[in-house]
Amino acid sequence: MITSLSGFPEWLPAEQIAEQLVIERIRRVFELHGFTPLHTRAVEPLDRLLRGGDVEKEIYVLRRLHADDDDAGTGLGLHFDLTVPFARYVVENAGRLTFPFRRYQIQKVWRGERPQEGRFREFTQADIDIVDRGDLAAHYEIELPLVIAEALAALPIPPVRIQVNNRKLAEGCYRALGARDVPTVLRIVDKLGKIGPDAVERELVAHSGLSAAAARTCLALAEIRGRDVAERVRKLGLTGELIDDGLAELARVVDGVEAVWPGLVEVDLRIARGLDYYTGTVYETALAGHEDLGSISSGGRYDNLAAEGTTRYPGVGMSIGVSRLLARMLTQVTASRSVPTCVLVAVPSEERRPEADRIARQLRSRGIPADVSPSAAKYGKQIQYASRRGIPFVWFPGAPDSVKDIRSGDQYAADAGSWQPPEDDRWPRLVGVLEEKERNE
Amino acid sequence: MITSLSGFPEWLPAEQIAEQLVIERIRRVFELHGFTPLHTRAVEPLDRLLRGGDVEKEIYVLRRLHADDDDAGTGLGLHFDLTVPFARYVVENAGRLTFPFRRYQIQKVWRGERPQEGRFREFTQADIDIVDRGDLAAHYEIELPLVIAEALAALPIPPVRIQVNNRKLAEGCYRALGARDVPTVLRIVDKLGKIGPDAVERELVAHSGLSAAAARTCLALAEIRGRDVAERVRKLGLTGELIDDGLAELARVVDGVEAVWPGLVEVDLRIARGLDYYTGTVYETALAGHEDLGSISSGGRYDNLAAEGTTRYPGVGMSIGVSRLLARMLTQVTASRSVPTCVLVAVPSEERRPEADRIARQLRSRGIPADVSPSAAKYGKQIQYASRRGIPFVWFPGAPDSVKDIRSGDQYAADAGSWQPPEDDRWPRLVGVLEEKERNE
Repeated sequence: MITSLSGFPEWLPAEQIAEQLVIERIRRVFELHGFTPLHTRAVEPLDRLLRGGDVEKEIYVLRRLHADDDDAGTGLGLHFDLTVPFARYVVENAGRLTFPFRRYQIQKVWRGERPQEGRFREFTQADIDIVDRGDLAAHYEIELPLVIAEALAALPIPPVRIQVNNRKLAEGCYRALGARDVPTVLRIVDKLGKIGPDAVERELVAHSGLSAAAARTCLALAEIRGRDVAERVRKLGLTGELIDDGLAELARVVDGVEAVWPGLVEVDLRIARGLDYYTGTVYETALAGHEDLGSISSGGRYDNLAAEGTTRYPGVGMSIGVSRLLARMLTQVTASRSVPTCVLVAVPSEERRPEADRIARQLRSRGIPADVSPSAAKYGKQIQYASRRGIPFVWFPGAPDSVKDIRSGDQYAADAGSWQPPEDDRWPRLVGVLEEKERNE
Repeated sequence: MITSLSGFPEWLPAEQIAEQLVIERIRRVFELHGFTPLHTRAVEPLDRLLRGGDVEKEIYVLRRLHADDDDAGTGLGLHFDLTVPFARYVVENAGRLTFPFRRYQIQKVWRGERPQEGRFREFTQADIDIVDRGDLAAHYEIELPLVIAEALAALPIPPVRIQVNNRKLAEGCYRALGARDVPTVLRIVDKLGKIGPDAVERELVAHSGLSAAAARTCLALAEIRGRDVAERVRKLGLTGELIDDGLAELARVVDGVEAVWPGLVEVDLRIARGLDYYTGTVYETALAGHEDLGSISSGGRYDNLAAEGTTRYPGVGMSIGVSRLLARMLTQVTASRSVPTCVLVAVPSEERRPEADRIARQLRSRGIPADVSPSAAKYGKQIQYASRRGIPFVWFPGAPDSVKDIRSGDQYAADAGSWQPPEDDRWPRLVGVLEEKERNE
C-alpha cells in the first residue's frame, strides 16, 4: 500500500489484482443471492447528506474552480456511505422499480475525518440492502447476515462472528432509565470500545442527563451477550413494550440464523451503531484474531430513511468495509502474479515480431492471456521480463514452437492452436504472501 | 437513464446490469492482452491537475464542510481524466513497478462543464496505457488501437473506424506556416467539427497570429485523409524535419495496423486532440452511423507527461468513453432481466420457508443464482414476482419438486441437486431492446 496522500490509499499492481479477486468473490456471492448491481453518482445534495446523521464534520463539499465566487458553490458533497444515496435512488425511482428491491453496491465513499490505522478518507464499501414499499418482511433480517457471512467465507480470512442488537430494545431500556435524548446515549455507548466504561459513564452523566446509577445500568446492559438475554435484561429491572418488542425481534433473528449457521451470530447489547437511521436490528462483525480492527461489516434495519409523502420504504442492509479488510489481508494474501498475463511470447528478432503477435492472438482467442516481449533482446532477458512479473510461461516461436514453464524450467514443443496451461495458471489467483515470497527466491 | 441531477446520469436496474456486462467484456479483452488492473484515488493535488492542459474551468475542488474557513480548503480536486493520475502514480512508484508497465483503468472522472447530449459531469472511462522508462518502443502505437478495436468489437455496437494523426506532423506544418503558438492553433483546429471551417479560419487569424492564407492552408491540411498523405502535404508546400518525422511515424502506425486489421485505421489530419500532453501519434474513434456522437475512444502518445529528475516515462494510451457509448447503446441493447436471479423458489407457506431456503442454497452451491419468494402468497402472485423481474424459472417445493419455465409455461419434476438451467439463462445477457420488449408482451 502507498499513501502519498494521507488517508487516500493506493495499491501496487499485485495488490490491485488481489483486491479485484476479493471484490469478484464478494460480488459473485451477492449475485448468486439475486442482489442486482447498482452504482449511484458520487455526489449528493448537501441537505440530503446532512440528514444522514452525525456526519457533518466528515463531508467533502464540491466547488467549481473557475466559476465566479458567488457561483462556485455547487450545493453538492461526496457521499460518505452507500445507504443514504441508495435510499434517495429508491424514492426517486420508486415507480420504475419492483419491490422488494434487492441490490448490492460496491463503490468508493469519502470521509474528511482524520486518518488513522484502518480508517481512510477514501475507501471502498460493499453493501447489500433489501427495501420494500410499505412493510418489510422480518425474514430479511435473518437472510442478510447469512449472505454477508457467505461472502466473507469466500475470502481467505479467519472466521467471523456477527454481533446483533436491537434499537427498540436499546431505546426501551434507555427510556426506562429516564433518558430523553436516546440518540445521544447511543452515540456515547457506541464509544465503549474506544474510551472504556469509566469515560462512557462520565459522558453519560455529563451529556445525556442520566443519573450515575442509570449510567451504570447502561454499562451493565452493554455487558450482556450470548444467551438468556431477556432474563438478564429483566433482572436489571428494565421492562416495557418497546423492550418486549426488541427482545422478540432479537430472538427471532438469532434463532433464524442459528438454524442455518450455528454459532454465526450472538447477541451483544454493546452494539449501538453510531448512525441515526437504524430503527430495529443492528449488526456488527468481528474477524477472529483481528478484533482490534473493529467491525468489518455493519448495518441494520431502517424503517424511516426513505419516504415519499405517506409511502415508507423500510429497508435492511449490511456493508462490508472492503478497504479496511484489505489493508489487513494484504499483509498475508496477495495475487500469484502482478499481471494477468499467463504466457509471454518471445520475439526472436524484430523482423519476426508479426509471427510472435500471431501466436499471442491465437492464444488469446482461446482465452489464454498473452503478452509479447517488448524487444528482441537475448532470450535470457526476455525470460527475465516474464519472471519479474510472475508470468509462468514463455513461448518460443520456431519450427516447432516450444513453451517453457520458467518455474520448473521444463520446456516442450507446443502448438498455439491447442496448448492449454494448467487451469490454476490461466488467471492470477489469491495466494499466501509467504508462499509468493518463497517462489520468488 | 435518470438524471435527477443534471450531468450525473444514473441507470435503472436492467441498464445497470447491461453496463456491468459491457464493462466486463472490455475488461476481459484488456486482461487477455496482459494489461493489469489499476485504480487510483479520485483526488489529485490541484497543481498537478492544472498541469494537465486546458481544463481549469472543469475542475471540481474539495472543501471540508465544517473545518474553520482558513482550513476548509484541501488543495485537492477530483480527477478529470485517468491519464494524469496514472502518470503521477507511475512516477511515485517507479521503483516498485516493472517497465514497460501496461495497465488498464476503468473509473469515474468528473468535469464541471455544462452538460449536453453525450457529455456528463460524472462519467466512466476505460483506459489502457503502456509506459516505459527512458524510451518507449514504437510498436506499442500499433498495438493500442488494435486492443481498443478488439474491446469495442466485443460489444453489440456497429463497427468502428480509428482516425490517426501525428502531433509532430501538425506542429511541423503549423510552424512552417509561421505559427508561434502551436497549442493555440491545435485547440482552434480541434473545434472544426463543432464550429465549422469559416469560424476556425476567423479564430486562427484573430488568436494565433496566422495570416489568412496560412489559416486557409491549415484548413486544407485538415481535409487530408486516407492515402497519399505525404504527397498531399508536400503539395501544400509544407516541408521540414518535423514534418518528415511525423509522416514516417504516421505511415508506420497505419501500415502496422493495416497488416493485422485491414480498414481499421485511416489517416485524418483533422484530428488534433485538445489536451496539451500529446507529442506524437493521436487517435480518435468514430462509430459507424453514430458519427454525431463524436469520438468514442481517443488517445495518443505522450513523451513528457511523466518525468522525475532526468528520467522520462514516455507513454501511449487510449480511453473508451464508456458512459457516452452506453447512453447511446442502451436505447438499443439491454440486459435480458433486471436481476441476476435465474430461479425464484416459491414458498408454499411461511412454515415451509426453511424448505424453500434449503432448495435455494442447494442451487446457489452449484452456481445457479436463486432467490426465495418474499411471501407465501398465492402461486400466481409469486410467479408474477418472477415475471416482473424477467426471472425465467420458478421452483415449487413438493414431493417431488418441480420447476416451471414461465416463458413457455413448461413445468416438470426436478431435483435441486442436479437440475441445470440452459447455459444462456444462468446469468443475465445483453439482448436487443426490441427483443426484450416483445418478450414482456
